[in-house]
Amino acid sequence: MSIVFREAGERDLPGVVALLADDVLGQGREVAEIAPYRDAFARMAEDPNNVLIVGEADGAVVACYQLTIIPGVSLSATTRAQIEGVRVASGMRGQGAGRALVVDAEERARAAGATLLQLTMNRSRKDSHRFYEANGFVPSHIGFKKPL
Amino acid sequence: MSIVFREAGERDLPGVVALLADDVLGQGREVAEIAPYRDAFARMAEDPNNVLIVGEADGAVVACYQLTIIPGVSLSATTRAQIEGVRVASGMRGQGAGRALVVDAEERARAAGATLLQLTMNRSRKDSHRFYEANGFVPSHIGFKKPL
Repeated sequence: MSIVFREAGERDLPGVVALLADDVLGQGREVAEIAPYRDAFARMAEDPNNVLIVGEADGAVVACYQLTIIPGVSLSATTRAQIEGVRVASGMRGQGAGRALVVDAEERARAAGATLLQLTMNRSRKDSHRFYEANGFVPSHIGFKKPL
Repeated sequence: MSIVFREAGERDLPGVVALLADDVLGQGREVAEIAPYRDAFARMAEDPNNVLIVGEADGAVVACYQLTIIPGVSLSATTRAQIEGVRVASGMRGQGAGRALVVDAEERARAAGATLLQLTMNRSRKDSHRFYEANGFVPSHIGFKKPL
Protein backbone atom coordinates (compact mmCIF):
# COMPACT_ATOMS: atom_id res chain seq x y z
CA MET A 1 0.00 0.00 0.00
CA SER A 2 1.40 3.39 -0.93
CA ILE A 3 1.53 6.19 1.64
CA VAL A 4 1.43 9.86 0.72
CA PHE A 5 3.05 12.24 3.24
CA ARG A 6 1.78 15.81 3.52
CA GLU A 7 1.48 18.61 6.07
CA ALA A 8 -1.36 17.96 8.50
CA GLY A 9 -4.50 20.06 8.65
CA GLU A 10 -6.68 20.51 11.71
CA ARG A 11 -9.09 17.88 10.31
CA ASP A 12 -6.29 15.30 10.71
CA LEU A 13 -5.92 15.79 14.45
CA PRO A 14 -8.32 13.04 15.61
CA GLY A 15 -6.41 10.55 13.47
CA VAL A 16 -3.07 11.80 14.78
CA VAL A 17 -4.20 11.58 18.41
CA ALA A 18 -5.42 8.02 17.81
CA LEU A 19 -1.98 7.14 16.43
CA LEU A 20 -0.18 8.75 19.37
CA ALA A 21 -2.25 6.68 21.80
CA ASP A 22 -1.80 3.46 19.78
CA ASP A 23 1.72 2.96 21.12
CA VAL A 24 3.22 0.99 23.99
CA LEU A 25 4.44 4.18 25.69
CA GLY A 26 1.72 6.47 24.36
CA GLN A 27 -1.11 4.50 25.95
CA GLY A 28 -0.28 5.92 29.35
CA ARG A 29 0.45 9.47 28.41
CA GLU A 30 -2.06 10.76 25.87
CA VAL A 31 -5.31 12.39 27.01
CA ALA A 32 -8.87 11.77 25.83
CA GLU A 33 -9.96 15.33 25.02
CA ILE A 34 -8.93 16.90 21.71
CA ALA A 35 -8.70 20.55 22.88
CA PRO A 36 -5.04 20.47 24.08
CA TYR A 37 -3.98 19.00 20.74
CA ARG A 38 -5.86 21.70 18.81
CA ASP A 39 -4.14 24.39 20.89
CA ALA A 40 -0.72 22.83 20.27
CA PHE A 41 -1.43 22.51 16.56
CA ALA A 42 -2.39 26.20 16.41
CA ARG A 43 0.92 27.09 18.09
CA MET A 44 2.81 24.93 15.61
CA ALA A 45 1.03 26.63 12.72
CA GLU A 46 2.49 29.99 13.85
CA ASP A 47 6.03 28.63 13.48
CA PRO A 48 7.16 27.99 9.89
CA ASN A 49 10.08 25.90 11.21
CA ASN A 50 7.80 23.41 12.94
CA VAL A 51 5.42 21.17 10.98
CA LEU A 52 3.24 18.16 11.68
CA ILE A 53 3.33 15.64 8.83
CA VAL A 54 0.82 12.86 8.27
CA GLY A 55 1.05 9.78 6.09
CA GLU A 56 -2.22 8.95 4.36
CA ALA A 57 -3.24 5.67 2.76
CA ASP A 58 -6.69 4.94 1.35
CA GLY A 59 -8.00 8.16 2.92
CA ALA A 60 -6.86 7.28 6.45
CA VAL A 61 -4.07 8.78 8.56
CA VAL A 62 -1.69 5.84 9.09
CA ALA A 63 1.51 7.60 10.15
CA CYS A 64 2.66 10.90 11.59
CA TYR A 65 5.75 12.77 12.70
CA GLN A 66 6.81 16.26 13.65
CA LEU A 67 9.71 18.00 11.89
CA THR A 68 11.44 21.04 13.40
CA ILE A 69 14.09 22.99 11.53
CA ILE A 70 16.67 24.39 13.96
CA PRO A 71 19.24 26.81 12.56
CA GLY A 72 22.11 27.30 15.00
CA VAL A 73 25.72 28.38 15.40
CA SER A 74 27.29 25.21 16.83
CA LEU A 75 28.90 22.52 14.65
CA SER A 76 30.16 25.16 12.17
CA ALA A 77 26.71 26.77 12.02
CA THR A 78 24.84 23.58 11.15
CA THR A 79 21.11 23.76 10.52
CA ARG A 80 19.55 20.75 12.23
CA ALA A 81 16.27 19.04 11.42
CA GLN A 82 14.66 17.21 14.30
CA ILE A 83 12.07 14.47 14.25
CA GLU A 84 9.65 14.01 17.17
CA GLY A 85 6.54 11.92 17.75
CA VAL A 86 6.99 9.28 15.05
CA ARG A 87 4.08 6.87 14.85
CA VAL A 88 3.02 4.24 12.31
CA ALA A 89 -0.37 2.54 12.68
CA SER A 90 0.05 -0.92 14.19
CA GLY A 91 -1.58 -2.55 11.18
CA MET A 92 0.90 -0.86 8.82
CA ARG A 93 4.15 -1.84 10.51
CA GLY A 94 6.70 -4.04 8.77
CA GLN A 95 5.55 -2.95 5.30
CA GLY A 96 8.00 -0.16 4.59
CA ALA A 97 5.94 2.67 6.10
CA GLY A 98 8.70 3.60 8.55
CA ARG A 99 11.29 3.63 5.81
CA ALA A 100 9.03 5.85 3.66
CA LEU A 101 8.55 8.18 6.61
CA VAL A 102 12.32 8.58 7.12
CA VAL A 103 12.82 9.24 3.40
CA ASP A 104 10.09 11.89 3.51
CA ALA A 105 11.69 13.55 6.58
CA GLU A 106 15.11 13.59 4.89
CA GLU A 107 13.69 15.22 1.77
CA ARG A 108 11.92 17.92 3.78
CA ALA A 109 15.00 18.49 5.94
CA ARG A 110 17.30 18.90 2.94
CA ALA A 111 14.81 21.23 1.24
CA ALA A 112 14.96 23.44 4.35
CA GLY A 113 18.76 23.57 4.21
CA ALA A 114 19.41 21.16 7.09
CA THR A 115 22.59 19.06 7.02
CA LEU A 116 21.97 17.02 10.17
CA LEU A 117 18.86 14.98 10.98
CA GLN A 118 18.38 14.08 14.65
CA LEU A 119 15.91 12.43 16.96
CA THR A 120 15.84 10.91 20.42
CA MET A 121 14.15 7.73 21.43
CA ASN A 122 13.26 6.15 24.73
CA ARG A 123 15.83 3.50 25.67
CA SER A 124 13.07 0.89 25.91
CA ARG A 125 12.22 1.00 22.17
CA LYS A 126 14.74 -1.68 21.16
CA ASP A 127 13.15 -2.52 17.80
CA SER A 128 13.15 1.15 16.82
CA HIS A 129 16.84 1.48 17.69
CA ARG A 130 17.65 -1.23 15.17
CA PHE A 131 15.40 0.38 12.58
CA TYR A 132 17.11 3.78 12.79
CA GLU A 133 20.60 2.29 12.80
CA ALA A 134 19.66 0.31 9.67
CA ASN A 135 18.57 3.61 8.11
CA GLY A 136 21.89 5.39 8.64
CA PHE A 137 21.39 6.99 12.05
CA VAL A 138 24.21 6.79 14.62
CA PRO A 139 23.30 6.43 18.34
CA SER A 140 26.12 8.76 19.35
CA HIS A 141 24.29 10.75 22.01
CA ILE A 142 22.43 10.43 25.29
CA GLY A 143 19.09 12.21 25.51
CA PHE A 144 18.38 13.95 28.82
CA LYS A 145 14.88 15.12 29.81
CA LYS A 146 13.71 17.21 32.74
CA PRO A 147 10.03 17.90 33.46
CA LEU A 148 9.44 21.55 34.38
CA MET B 1 31.99 36.12 39.75
CA SER B 2 28.42 36.79 38.72
CA ILE B 3 27.20 35.97 35.21
CA VAL B 4 24.35 37.78 33.51
CA PHE B 5 22.52 35.82 30.82
CA ARG B 6 20.87 37.67 27.93
CA GLU B 7 19.92 37.20 24.28
CA ALA B 8 22.97 37.46 22.03
CA GLY B 9 23.48 40.27 19.54
CA GLU B 10 25.54 40.03 16.37
CA ARG B 11 28.42 41.75 18.20
CA ASP B 12 28.65 38.71 20.50
CA LEU B 13 29.34 36.25 17.68
CA PRO B 14 33.17 36.34 17.78
CA GLY B 15 33.03 35.54 21.51
CA VAL B 16 30.51 32.75 20.94
CA VAL B 17 32.58 31.19 18.16
CA ALA B 18 35.67 31.29 20.39
CA LEU B 19 33.69 29.45 23.08
CA LEU B 20 32.42 26.85 20.61
CA ALA B 21 35.99 26.12 19.50
CA ASP B 22 37.32 26.04 23.11
CA ASP B 23 35.96 22.54 23.65
CA VAL B 24 37.38 19.04 23.38
CA LEU B 25 34.93 18.13 20.60
CA GLY B 26 34.55 21.63 19.16
CA GLN B 27 38.24 22.00 18.33
CA GLY B 28 37.88 19.73 15.34
CA ARG B 29 34.58 20.95 14.01
CA GLU B 30 34.36 24.72 14.14
CA VAL B 31 35.60 26.82 11.22
CA ALA B 32 37.85 29.89 11.24
CA GLU B 33 35.74 32.30 9.20
CA ILE B 34 32.86 34.16 10.88
CA ALA B 35 30.53 34.42 7.85
CA PRO B 36 28.71 31.06 8.29
CA TYR B 37 27.97 31.94 11.93
CA ARG B 38 26.58 35.35 10.94
CA ASP B 39 24.32 33.68 8.37
CA ALA B 40 23.08 31.16 10.95
CA PHE B 41 22.50 33.90 13.51
CA ALA B 42 20.43 35.84 10.97
CA ARG B 43 18.33 32.72 10.35
CA MET B 44 17.85 32.25 14.08
CA ALA B 45 16.76 35.89 14.43
CA GLU B 46 13.88 35.22 12.03
CA ASP B 47 12.52 32.51 14.34
CA PRO B 48 11.05 33.76 17.63
CA ASN B 49 11.16 30.21 19.01
CA ASN B 50 14.92 29.92 18.59
CA VAL B 51 17.33 32.13 20.56
CA LEU B 52 21.05 32.26 21.24
CA ILE B 53 21.81 33.19 24.85
CA VAL B 54 25.15 34.43 26.14
CA GLY B 55 26.46 34.64 29.68
CA GLU B 56 28.48 37.78 30.31
CA ALA B 57 30.91 38.48 33.16
CA ASP B 58 33.09 41.58 33.41
CA GLY B 59 32.15 42.54 29.85
CA ALA B 60 33.25 39.23 28.32
CA VAL B 61 31.17 36.40 26.85
CA VAL B 62 31.97 33.45 29.13
CA ALA B 63 29.08 31.07 28.36
CA CYS B 64 26.51 30.41 25.67
CA TYR B 65 23.66 28.11 24.76
CA GLN B 66 20.84 27.89 22.27
CA LEU B 67 17.22 27.50 23.39
CA THR B 68 14.51 26.30 21.01
CA ILE B 69 10.84 26.23 21.97
CA ILE B 70 9.07 23.32 20.26
CA PRO B 71 5.29 23.15 20.59
CA GLY B 72 4.00 19.73 19.53
CA VAL B 73 1.13 17.28 19.80
CA SER B 74 2.87 14.26 21.31
CA LEU B 75 3.06 13.64 25.09
CA SER B 76 -0.43 15.13 25.57
CA ALA B 77 0.51 18.19 23.51
CA THR B 78 3.63 19.03 25.49
CA THR B 79 5.61 22.14 24.57
CA ARG B 80 9.28 21.21 24.74
CA ALA B 81 12.26 23.49 25.27
CA GLN B 82 15.52 22.23 23.86
CA ILE B 83 19.06 23.22 24.75
CA GLU B 84 21.88 22.95 22.18
CA GLY B 85 25.47 24.11 22.03
CA VAL B 86 26.15 24.65 25.73
CA ARG B 87 29.61 26.08 26.40
CA VAL B 88 31.26 27.57 29.48
CA ALA B 89 34.69 29.19 29.14
CA SER B 90 37.39 26.83 30.39
CA GLY B 91 38.56 29.37 32.97
CA MET B 92 35.02 29.64 34.40
CA ARG B 93 34.26 25.95 34.94
CA GLY B 94 33.65 24.54 38.40
CA GLN B 95 32.43 27.88 39.77
CA GLY B 96 28.68 27.48 39.32
CA ALA B 97 28.47 28.90 35.81
CA GLY B 98 26.93 25.70 34.42
CA ARG B 99 24.38 25.61 37.21
CA ALA B 100 23.47 29.27 36.57
CA LEU B 101 23.11 28.49 32.87
CA VAL B 102 20.67 25.64 33.52
CA VAL B 103 18.63 27.83 35.88
CA ASP B 104 18.47 30.55 33.21
CA ALA B 105 17.35 28.02 30.58
CA GLU B 106 14.64 26.67 32.88
CA GLU B 107 13.30 30.16 33.55
CA ARG B 108 13.17 31.02 29.85
CA ALA B 109 11.59 27.65 29.03
CA ARG B 110 8.86 28.05 31.65
CA ALA B 111 8.18 31.62 30.52
CA ALA B 112 7.56 30.27 27.01
CA GLY B 113 5.07 27.71 28.31
CA ALA B 114 7.33 24.67 28.03
CA THR B 115 6.83 21.78 30.47
CA LEU B 116 9.73 19.60 29.34
CA LEU B 117 13.37 20.63 29.00
CA GLN B 118 15.56 18.38 26.84
CA LEU B 119 19.04 18.13 25.42
CA THR B 120 21.31 15.52 23.93
CA MET B 121 24.96 15.08 24.65
CA ASN B 122 27.75 13.13 23.04
CA ARG B 123 28.35 9.85 24.92
CA SER B 124 32.00 10.82 25.45
CA ARG B 125 31.19 13.81 27.70
CA LYS B 126 31.17 11.81 30.94
CA ASP B 127 31.63 14.78 33.30
CA SER B 128 28.71 16.58 31.68
CA HIS B 129 26.49 13.52 32.12
CA ARG B 130 27.03 13.66 35.87
CA PHE B 131 26.42 17.40 35.89
CA TYR B 132 23.02 17.15 34.18
CA GLU B 133 21.92 14.20 36.30
CA ALA B 134 22.85 16.20 39.41
CA ASN B 135 20.64 19.00 38.05
CA GLY B 136 17.52 16.89 37.68
CA PHE B 137 17.83 15.61 34.12
CA VAL B 138 17.10 11.94 33.41
CA PRO B 139 19.17 10.11 30.73
CA SER B 140 16.12 8.22 29.51
CA HIS B 141 16.73 8.49 25.78
CA ILE B 142 19.22 7.64 23.05
CA GLY B 143 20.12 10.44 20.65
CA PHE B 144 20.42 9.43 16.99
CA LYS B 145 22.11 11.64 14.39
CA LYS B 146 22.32 11.31 10.62
CA PRO B 147 24.38 13.67 8.45
CA LEU B 148 22.45 14.68 5.32
